[in-house]
Order: sequence, then C-alpha cells, then structure tokens
Amino acid sequence: MKKILVIGGVAAGLKAAAKARRCDSQASITVLERGKIISYGACGMPYYVGGDVNDIDDLMKTPVGVLRSPGYFKNAKDITVLTQTEAMAIDRDSKVVTVKNLATGEDDTLPYDKLVIATGASAIKPSLPGVELGNIYSLWHPDDAKAIRQGIEAGKFNRAIIIGAGLVGMEMAEALTKQQLQVTVVEMKDQVFPAFLDPEIAGVVSKYAAEKGINLLAAEKVEAFIGETEVTAVKTDKRTIPADLVVLAIGARPNVELARAAGLTIGTTGAISVDDEMRTSDPDIYAGGDCVENINIMSGQKVFAPMGSTANKHGRVIGENLCGGHVKFKGVLNTVIAKVHSLTVGKTGLSERDAKQLGYDYITVMVAGPDKPHYMGAKSITIKLIADANTRKVLGMQAVGEGEVAKRVDVAAAVLTMGGTIDDLFDIDLSYAPPYNSPIDNLAVAANAVMNKLAGKFNGISPITAKEKMQTGKAVFLDVRTPDECKQIRLADCPNIKYIPLGQLRSRLAELNKADEIVAFCKISLRGYEAEGFLEGAGFENVKVLEGGIVSWPFACEKEE
Amino acid sequence: MKKILVIGGVAAGLKAAAKARRCDSQASITVLERGKIISYGACGMPYYVGGDVNDIDDLMKTPVGVLRSPGYFKNAKDITVLTQTEAMAIDRDSKVVTVKNLATGEDDTLPYDKLVIATGASAIKPSLPGVELGNIYSLWHPDDAKAIRQGIEAGKFNRAIIIGAGLVGMEMAEALTKQQLQVTVVEMKDQVFPAFLDPEIAGVVSKYAAEKGINLLAAEKVEAFIGETEVTAVKTDKRTIPADLVVLAIGARPNVELARAAGLTIGTTGAISVDDEMRTSDPDIYAGGDCVENINIMSGQKVFAPMGSTANKHGRVIGENLCGGHVKFKGVLNTVIAKVHSLTVGKTGLSERDAKQLGYDYITVMVAGPDKPHYMGAKSITIKLIADANTRKVLGMQAVGEGEVAKRVDVAAAVLTMGGTIDDLFDIDLSYAPPYNSPIDNLAVAANAVMNKLAGKFNGISPITAKEKMQTGKAVFLDVRTPDECKQIRLADCPNIKYIPLGQLRSRLAELNKADEIVAFCKISLRGYEAEGFLEGAGFENVKVLEGGIVSWPFACEKEE
Repeated sequence: MKKILVIGGVAAGLKAAAKARRCDSQASITVLERGKIISYGACGMPYYVGGDVNDIDDLMKTPVGVLRSPGYFKNAKDITVLTQTEAMAIDRDSKVVTVKNLATGEDDTLPYDKLVIATGASAIKPSLPGVELGNIYSLWHPDDAKAIRQGIEAGKFNRAIIIGAGLVGMEMAEALTKQQLQVTVVEMKDQVFPAFLDPEIAGVVSKYAAEKGINLLAAEKVEAFIGETEVTAVKTDKRTIPADLVVLAIGARPNVELARAAGLTIGTTGAISVDDEMRTSDPDIYAGGDCVENINIMSGQKVFAPMGSTANKHGRVIGENLCGGHVKFKGVLNTVIAKVHSLTVGKTGLSERDAKQLGYDYITVMVAGPDKPHYMGAKSITIKLIADANTRKVLGMQAVGEGEVAKRVDVAAAVLTMGGTIDDLFDIDLSYAPPYNSPIDNLAVAANAVMNKLAGKFNGISPITAKEKMQTGKAVFLDVRTPDECKQIRLADCPNIKYIPLGQLRSRLAELNKADEIVAFCKISLRGYEAEGFLEGAGFENVKVLEGGIVSWPFACEKEE
Repeated sequence: MKKILVIGGVAAGLKAAAKARRCDSQASITVLERGKIISYGACGMPYYVGGDVNDIDDLMKTPVGVLRSPGYFKNAKDITVLTQTEAMAIDRDSKVVTVKNLATGEDDTLPYDKLVIATGASAIKPSLPGVELGNIYSLWHPDDAKAIRQGIEAGKFNRAIIIGAGLVGMEMAEALTKQQLQVTVVEMKDQVFPAFLDPEIAGVVSKYAAEKGINLLAAEKVEAFIGETEVTAVKTDKRTIPADLVVLAIGARPNVELARAAGLTIGTTGAISVDDEMRTSDPDIYAGGDCVENINIMSGQKVFAPMGSTANKHGRVIGENLCGGHVKFKGVLNTVIAKVHSLTVGKTGLSERDAKQLGYDYITVMVAGPDKPHYMGAKSITIKLIADANTRKVLGMQAVGEGEVAKRVDVAAAVLTMGGTIDDLFDIDLSYAPPYNSPIDNLAVAANAVMNKLAGKFNGISPITAKEKMQTGKAVFLDVRTPDECKQIRLADCPNIKYIPLGQLRSRLAELNKADEIVAFCKISLRGYEAEGFLEGAGFENVKVLEGGIVSWPFACEKEE
C-alpha cells in the first residue's frame, strides 16, 4: 500500500490529498498540520475583521456548513489529518519524516513513499524596535483576526496604522474604516499596490481611498513602534503617528526551512524550486502552494506569488502526479484583484513597468467608460492595456473602478493565457445585454484604442505625462465638456486650460493656436478623442488626448462646493 | 471629395459613419434614417417598460446626457443625418440612391461613391387572425415601449400574454411581472430560449420563472387573437387565455428588400451576404448590422444573429474599409445573455444540440456551485460545458444562476475565440479574492470535471437522463446530504430514493446493493462526487453522479412547508 504523506493542511496540501484519494482508493494518506485548525479561508479574514462575516468559523466550513475538521476528512475521504503535528526533519534516504506532537511534545517518525511539502508562507515581521509590543498584528492566522475584532468590539482601538499598501494592507484598510477606526496606511514605496500596479492606476486607487477616509502615507518608512507594553505610536522617517492598533502587511516569505534542511533546491526567489509537474529536486517529493515559486507565463521568469487560487491548482496537479499522472502546471499571470470599499482594482500579466524591464517594444493605452449603458445605472471603469507594439500580443491589463472590473480582468487573463493579440481581444463575441454591459464592451474599446494608436489615428497621453506638461506649462489643456459638467469638477492646478464644449469647437476654433501642443479631454476622453479628430482635420498637428479623462485623473480636482 | 452614403441610422450605420469620419476628415458622409429618431438603445426598451429606466429619452442619449440628434452628429462629427428619409431604390450602375422624404412625400436622388446598407431587421408579425387588434405590440421601436408603459401607468393592462420565450419575450416577462401584471408566456417549442439553450439549462430558467410568477406554456401554439377592437384573449391549440395586452416576441427578420431589389446577393439565412470585410456582392456597397448574416466561428456556418454588439463591430469594420482599410470581421459565437429578475442565463458557442447536429464526438458536463465563498454571501451558478472528446477543444458553454454568470460566459467566449481546450480553460490564472470568487473558480471546476470524465474518473449523468431513469424506476437515487438539508428540499416523484449522509456512507454501506445502478447527488453534487469515489473504492461498479445536484434539478422538488 502506497504511503502518501503531506506536510501542511491548509490549501495545497489538503487539495493534493483529496485528489490523490480520488486517483488511488487504496493508498494510505496522512496530512500533518502544525496548527490546531485546518483548511481555513485565510483570504476571508479581512472580511471577518470588517464585519462582512460574522462568525470566523464560517471561514473553516464547507458551503453547506460542515466544519472541515480531521473527522470530516477521515469520514468523507479516508484521509488522516494530524493537527498540532509539526514536521521537524525529512530523511530523504530512508524516506522518513520526523514529527513532533506539539500538544504532548512527543517525537515520532512517519515513513513515506511520496511526500508533499505544502508548508505555506509566513507574514514578514520587520526587525524594528518595538515590533513585539502588544496590539501589533499580522493578519496571517484566524487568531490574529479574532484578536483584532475582539479589540474593536471591546472599543479598544480607535487609531489604526497599517504597514504596507499591498493586498492585505488595503483590504484591512477597508475593513478597519468600515469599523469606524481612523486608518493610516504607511507604504515605503511611492504608491499603493506597488508590486503590481502602474502609477496612474495606483493613483486612481489612492484618490478613492482618500475619499473613503483612508489616510495614505506613501514613500514613508517605518522606523520604530513606540509604547510600554502596547503600541501607542508609530515612528516613521517623517513623523510620529499615534496608534492603538498596528497591522503588519508588508508581505510574506515562503516557509522553506524544512525543505532547505533536507537539501532540496531553493529557487532564486527564495521559494522551493519545482518543475512543471510540481516535483522538487527529489523525484519522490512534491511541493505546492505558498512555499514554492511559480513561473510567470508572460515573462518566463520565476516569481514568488502566493495565492489561494494557485495553491489549489498546485494541489490538483500534485494529487494527480502522486498517482503516476503527468499533469503539468502551466504557470501564473500574477493576476490579482482587490476590493477597497466599492472600488475594485485588478491586474493580469505584465505591468508597464514589467514590460519596460523585460525590454519589450510596447504600447499602452488607458480608457475609461461606463461599465454598461448609462440608463442602467452604470459605474465607471478604467482599463489600461499593455501590448507588444510589433506582435500586437497583449502583455498585460490593469483595471480599476466602481463598475464591473473582475469580469474584464478575467477575460484579459484568458486572452493572455492563450497568447492572444489586441485583435483577438477585440474580436471576442462577449455577451451583451443592458444589465451587463454596453454593446461595445470596455475591453473592446480598449483594444480598439490600441489599434488606433498603432495606426496613428489616436494620439494619447498618459495622465502622468500630462501632469508633467501641466506643471511645466508646456501644453494647452482643452476641456471639451459642457459648462455644467465643468462647473461640477475641473482639473486643479492647471493654469493653461481652455473650456470649449465639443459642439462649439467649430465656431470657436480661433481661440486655439496651431503652434500649441493641445491636450484634449472630457469626462472619459471620448469627446476628447473626437476633438482630436476634428482639430487634426482642421490642420492642428500637435493634439493629444488625455487618456482616461477626468474619471481616471489621479491628481487633484476642484469640485463644486 | 468622396461621397459616403449610409442607409440606416441606428447602430451599425452610425458607427460606420463615425468611424469613416475618423479615417477620412474630407469625405462627405450622409446617413439616411426613415424613422424620426436615430441611434436609440433598442435593447434597453424592456427596462423602460419594467420601470428600471424612467425616461425613454435616456435610451437616445450619450452617457453625459446629450441627445444623439442629427445636430449632435453634424456638430461633433460633421456627419449629415437625414431623418424621415427612406431609401427607395439603389441604382448600382449610376451609383445613385432614390430617397423619399416621408414628411413631405418628396422624392430625391443622392449619389454615392461608397454605400453602406444598415437597414436592420423587423419584428416578425405572425399572420394570424386578429393580429391587428389593439394592444398587440412588438417591442421593436421606442413607440411600442412608450405605448405599453403608458397603458400600464393608466391601469389599462392586467393580464399580459407574451408570444415567444426568447430573449425579448423573457425580458418582457420580467418587465411586466415587475409592473405587477399577470404574465403568461406562450412558446411554440418545448422550452424557454429554444434557439440557444439545451433543455436542462432551460429547465432551470423555467422553474425559476415560475417561482417569479411567470406562467410559461411551452409546446403550445397560438392560433388567433380574439377581441373587437382591442385584444381580449389569445386562442392557442390548447386553450383560450384572457388578455388585455399581447407582446409579440417571436423573432426578427432582416430588412433586405432594398438590397434584394438592387440585385445584391442574399444568403441562405435570408439576410444579406457579405464577405469578411463586410462587403456585399457589389464591391462599392457594404452592409452591416441586423440586416446581414454572420459566420459562426465554431460551426463555420452562416447564421442570422442580430445583436447590438455585433452591429457596432460591423460598423467599425465598415468604417475602416470605406477608407481603404482591409479590416476583417471574424464572426460570432452566438453569445447571448439575459436577465430574468435576479437570474442570469447565458451561452456562448455551440449548444449540445448544435454539437450533435454538426457531428462532433463531444462530451458535456454540468456543474453547480457557489459563485464565491459561502461566507461572502455567495449565490449559486450552474455551468454546462460542451467539449470535443478527441481534441479537448471547448465547443460551447451555458450558464445559469442568481450568481455572477456574465463573467464566466465572457471568459468562455474568450477561450472559444482563441480555439482553446478545456485544459486552457482550467489553466487561466483568473483573479481571486473572496468578494469575487472562490479559489477554484466555477469555470475551473467545470473544466476539471470534463477532464475527470474523459479520464474515466467521474461518471456523471445529466438531469434529463436521470429523470428518465427515475420514471422507469431503473436506478436507486442516493441523496448524501444532511438530514437538515433533506428536510428543506427533496427531489419529488422519486420512489426509489435513499437518504444516507456522506459521513454515514461507510457505516451504512449494507443498505446499498452492488447490483443496483446508483445515482448519487447532493445540493451541488460535490458530495455526490465524493460518494461515487467512495462507493467505487468499496467495489460498486455502477455509480453515477447527478450533474448539477438539486440546485440545477430542472424538475419538481418537494419543499418544507
């Protein structure tokens, strides 16, 4: 009887075990988990803290309310799960794992024919003075989430500081503002989501977050945590901020000590190296989940990209291969999505920064628009596409807005997986009905804009570049919206601006100078694009369109009081 | 100066004109529209009738509230739009169109260098006795929508009969039930959405519609409309039903008379035949929108599939090619989506019926599941995949449920456009976060189920086949849900059923007979699938899983009172 031993009982490990059981009804399958609980939905913890989920046990249950306990796995799948059991060492020659029972302190050894390492990752704890003070948490285990929520409910916390503006940081910023705390996010890099967003999309998120009361301090470094026994303030390189709750969200590192000690190859990312069948450097040992590195399909580079969705796919691949299969894991697109109150932001494939670094001759476009017909209560979304200027292959996509962002990210991910071009993206016969989208979906508009740019029919300019021109006074900004719209909201700090509604452009052409560089725009820059066409037809040669319009302008605006 | 003449001012025609203007700032561009209004969002009319949209003018406005009037097109795009102007004849030799001013009755001729036919389609009016009675409407023009809504608001209508259970019919069924009318839908075929859904998915829709008070009479044929001046009843081949409002929604036919009279080739579908550059049999005449036929990418067959999204794409292609471009329109997937109250149903590519007709050696699977983690307030969706059993290529997808269906349909459409396999579908690195989906997205679950079926690891049975076995008493139905769940809802009319919760299967194995055919299931049949694995491991050789579980069961259930 084949003995399968799995180290780690959260996502990849349990999935591998379940899949292996499916392929081999005879094997002995044992899962070791050092914690007390297994199979919990760690990604759901911010929603428990924020109050969307009321009972933390819900994160550990199946959809029909059954707790995913060792008993459940034994009964339903004949899988033995040993909790509070830590794997201490792997003896690859004799194929034995030394384990410690954390409840009793007793040691034991368990033999294996095939071993799976799914030891996950751990939150990075910065080695800064005061980091061990009370009320400083990483949101990594349900116990952290419980402690934070209990503190909130006991009225202990008023001012929270979150260190790191990545996924966990921004999800927690939403959660804690929902709970009426004053929230400050301190981020070392100069933008939110620095690991995956380009600055103009990040700017849209920051601006929105500020409106929701999230105080974001970017390009600011935490130096120490201050307090006697519990944290009372955070000292950064710029100021000292009072706080009674600190959440550390500066990322994770893979748990590779066991694998490294056993002599398995660790990749350059610091995570366990595996081949495309999820096998480590030892053919009898597989590894998956947050402790391994993945290949990014677009860049071909190895990346450390822990994600619950990826871990589950790893588990499936490992489970099949444990039973003699040769299923391959293709890789990741570093797709991410996050909710910040009503805003969704997502990304798949390469960012512009990535494309530049990899030496692509690329083209980008940013378009904004309603996510369905305006009469159906549309919300705006902004899409940025990055494409190869020569092969027309889509390299990456980012999207942000209060509208339906996730759908567009996932369609883009499908196109990237298949190596599609912007033409393929345009061609997709997407479903259409007014409750769901406009006849020309935002993705098709974006693809079309790239085509037009490549054909020289659309001369766009990113808000970042436009802001530079604005500051140097180099260009005339031409706002072609109606007077009513302009009254409601306008670009701030823009001295060189003209307000001429699109419909009056013909009659008021004399107000513009052909020698000037003109940056035309409107709410979403569709009319800005029409202004470009009209002005070019009228002999203007240096007209640009502000991509994304006012909706996507990441800088300050003046608003009607 | 090139003269571009466009016949038809709704979707394709105006889009072609606008795109042409973009490519050629000098051309003279004229659009003829026989109606009084242009560029209206016809697809939005059911939402106006139902009360989601309050002002019908909203359907004619740009997102910023500007009416898409001839003046707007003149000002913004230098395009001349002549309303109430009907094209009567095309003289292809002298390149002249005879037009009639419908307001004055005057005739005129307009010359062209390039002509675009975008005459759209018209609602089919059945030639049945009484069809000209009052209060019988096709929902084809804003005037119809206005009349119906005015009648509702005046309290004129109480009992509505909708003829046809297609897209317009079911959207109107929602609209009229929302307006508190008694609604009956009479459909000649034996299911809702007969043109694109397979029966088991259609069954889920019908069952839901019935719960929402929509009385669906399938396989029933209307024979006459009864009344003096206004309709008072509808006579079918089975009964006479009182009605004070009738909506005809039995489909559309392309307006091809003008093209046919000019000697242009009409395709076998009855719509205008065009090449992949949207050119008719006359190289100087393009045609697009609802009056032309399309190629279905999956089947390679010509289809008549009028759709606002397709019309807009046609317009773009035509606009480019009018100016010397050689842009191609790739074709359609016959993707559709419809909302019926909180339910969404969609489809892309081939149905199982299509695949069978085309002679594919295909495999199907139906899976149900929550559209995100249960603790985030998930709603269920059911996905049916149709794949080529040999090449593993995805042929089509259908989805239905109160959860997020549109996203999954669009991702499937992307995969179909790129010719992807079920493995590609599984591989997509879809975005994951609890507010949006589960770590393993429903699409990946469906793809995985097909893989398992092909590998002989999952023995599924469709509800249609299961119902037959139920009726003949041939199989034992094994419900492995908890007693609490079974108390709430159970399969009706199923004498040969056993209730053994999954967790008790091991201890109660003696209650089952190895000689029996066993159909295992649960709420979504995930536990049903586990039961299959367990029973097979225990030596049972004829175990099947009811695909989609109780959630997708299209037949009657018994419920707790």
